[in-house]
Amino acid sequence: MKTRLLTAKDLEAIVSSRGVNRFMDELICELRDGFSRLDAATVNIPVRTGIQYRNPGIGLLEWMPAMTGENKASLKIVGYHPSNPSQYKLPTILSTICIFDTHTGHLTGIFDGTLATAARTGAMSALATDLLCPEACEGIVGLIGCGAQSVTQLHALSRIRTITKVLVFDTDPSAVDSFRDRVSFLPCSLEIKSIEKSQLGELVQNADILCTCTSETPGCGPVFSDGPHKPNLHINAVGSDFPGKTEVPLSVLKRSLLVPDFRQQALAEGECQQLPPEAIACDLHELLASPSRQREGKSRLSVFDSTGHAYADYLAGAYLLASAERLEIGSFVEIECVPPDPRNPYSFLSQTYSASGYSRALGIVATSIT
Amino acid sequence: MKTRLLTAKDLEAIVSSRGVNRFMDELICELRDGFSRLDAATVNIPVRTGIQYRNPGIGLLEWMPAMTGENKASLKIVGYHPSNPSQYKLPTILSTICIFDTHTGHLTGIFDGTLATAARTGAMSALATDLLCPEACEGIVGLIGCGAQSVTQLHALSRIRTITKVLVFDTDPSAVDSFRDRVSFLPCSLEIKSIEKSQLGELVQNADILCTCTSETPGCGPVFSDGPHKPNLHINAVGSDFPGKTEVPLSVLKRSLLVPDFRQQALAEGECQQLPPEAIACDLHELLASPSRQREGKSRLSVFDSTGHAYADYLAGAYLLASAERLEIGSFVEIECVPPDPRNPYSFLSQTYSASGYSRALGIVATSIT
Repeated sequence: MKTRLLTAKDLEAIVSSRGVNRFMDELICELRDGFSRLDAATVNIPVRTGIQYRNPGIGLLEWMPAMTGENKASLKIVGYHPSNPSQYKLPTILSTICIFDTHTGHLTGIFDGTLATAARTGAMSALATDLLCPEACEGIVGLIGCGAQSVTQLHALSRIRTITKVLVFDTDPSAVDSFRDRVSFLPCSLEIKSIEKSQLGELVQNADILCTCTSETPGCGPVFSDGPHKPNLHINAVGSDFPGKTEVPLSVLKRSLLVPDFRQQALAEGECQQLPPEAIACDLHELLASPSRQREGKSRLSVFDSTGHAYADYLAGAYLLASAERLEIGSFVEIECVPPDPRNPYSFLSQTYSASGYSRALGIVATSIT
Repeated sequence: MKTRLLTAKDLEAIVSSRGVNRFMDELICELRDGFSRLDAATVNIPVRTGIQYRNPGIGLLEWMPAMTGENKASLKIVGYHPSNPSQYKLPTILSTICIFDTHTGHLTGIFDGTLATAARTGAMSALATDLLCPEACEGIVGLIGCGAQSVTQLHALSRIRTITKVLVFDTDPSAVDSFRDRVSFLPCSLEIKSIEKSQLGELVQNADILCTCTSETPGCGPVFSDGPHKPNLHINAVGSDFPGKTEVPLSVLKRSLLVPDFRQQALAEGECQQLPPEAIACDLHELLASPSRQREGKSRLSVFDSTGHAYADYLAGAYLLASAERLEIGSFVEIECVPPDPRNPYSFLSQTYSASGYSRALGIVATSIT
């Protein structure tokens, strides 16, 4: 039983084969198509579950499963360990994506989830923005939070709108300083302007598209104050993914067209926690099916509440694995073993032994019993 | 970030290094020690969750996590696809065990779960039997169900009691026919007698230890009738692991000392579903701490309700991985990738490219933006 393993180099080869722009374009397409055909009858996405602990340090391991009627299921395993950067020089979040064949349960592919997660989070924002932000906007993006997510947010947005200017803010000046370098690959000649905390109102006031992608402490939001803004501002609220963690002021949410990625999860962990369920306009997949909602969203304030959808992981993971298969990228590893005799869990022990060697492997002298 | 991968050959090398008997002895020890120190304050074992589906066929994927205060967590991914043997010549159950370091969330090891599951299920029955069956019994084992689990049940029991005779029954004669060969490695000169369905009463009547390890259809149990039996018969009920699936008659359970592996799970999926919670004597880890309960169990009818404990998977998985580390067995694979710049999810793209190549990899002409 072979499982396709994609290493960092393999993922790089997949992205390089088409360039990062076409990669992002294709991913946005995959998400658009996938969410358009999202059907409760065939797609099975349990709410994510996990284990939280305080020993040896604060940590969380969680599993995000998704299954569709397309003969595949995915499981993203996510570790969240905030002391990783300082104590172990590792990212706070480590994740692994497993893809299964639902005919048999076979693990067909396994690979790191960092790229897929960052790219799909950007692509989801781009998809929502394309549906809710007027095409004829000035192309000014406000970014509150300049960490890893901000790179793919801006990149994905640049694929669906012509971005002219980016106003960036982060509580950590080093994140702002390095932002310019991190997005230097973007081909558009865009202006990047860093904003002081005292000027956040200006950032909000000028933006056509605002992305909040912070790691605000639960209970300490919002990350900006309500104030003047363009009448059809579109906000992608990317950071809230935990009970009590919110980024957008309640008053802003109240007068916006509010669209979560996954209603049930957003009510528990997203911006939607701040509001009763009836304040939600529709889920993203419902928005895709409703041109009138899209028109409405483009003519007023709108918020995409992005909590991180396991189905987006599924689509991004399946896209990467299918690309690897087409390009013949990756290596095969034997994780699952099939015993030669399914009724004998020890039978694999005889695979490299002769009949007598089998007994040797078992460490005993076999006695014929009749 | 390296993950130790153990293939079938690697698992074989671990077992061969000590022989299958010492392997089983050590596993029983690990489970005894592990369950003795099971402490709700440090061990975190969420009830297993999963996805069930009917398309493309009947299937189930489930995740069994376990975390302890020992800086490790495990996740067993289990696929249950009943049409695998007939349609795909694969086992009904495929499973993979992942071991994580809870300092960082790093995936330290990954390997097949078939051997660990079968071995720990046998070892758990042996542990319960050792605590609940008199030492001075006649050593007669009754096995109802002769599939894969029966091999490790009998093997594990043979490590804690001198087994003289095995009475075996299966609804499928081919399973009975091959059973003798499958346990021919057992060193004891034991007599194996196959039993017709009409003689099941005789099997129950003569057994000191009865193991039910069937795949009885939910709602169709029990798999034997109440009737005469030895006064201190011990039953390991191994097969029930699903709502409605039971193997032991209610009247037998009612007059037994009933010990589940995991109370919460047993009440939902095990023999314990047939009874109110107050009918449960204690969990296995509580039995380990209670010599008086053990004495009581040895002097009366007792039932170990084995639904499959994620903590047993954790202990078996951690034991296999630790053995591999000590013996330097296995290979290292790069599943997780750490981007050189944690704030830039695309930074791994530059790993094998020069600065200009980086842009080539991105498929664009970089423009310096200031």
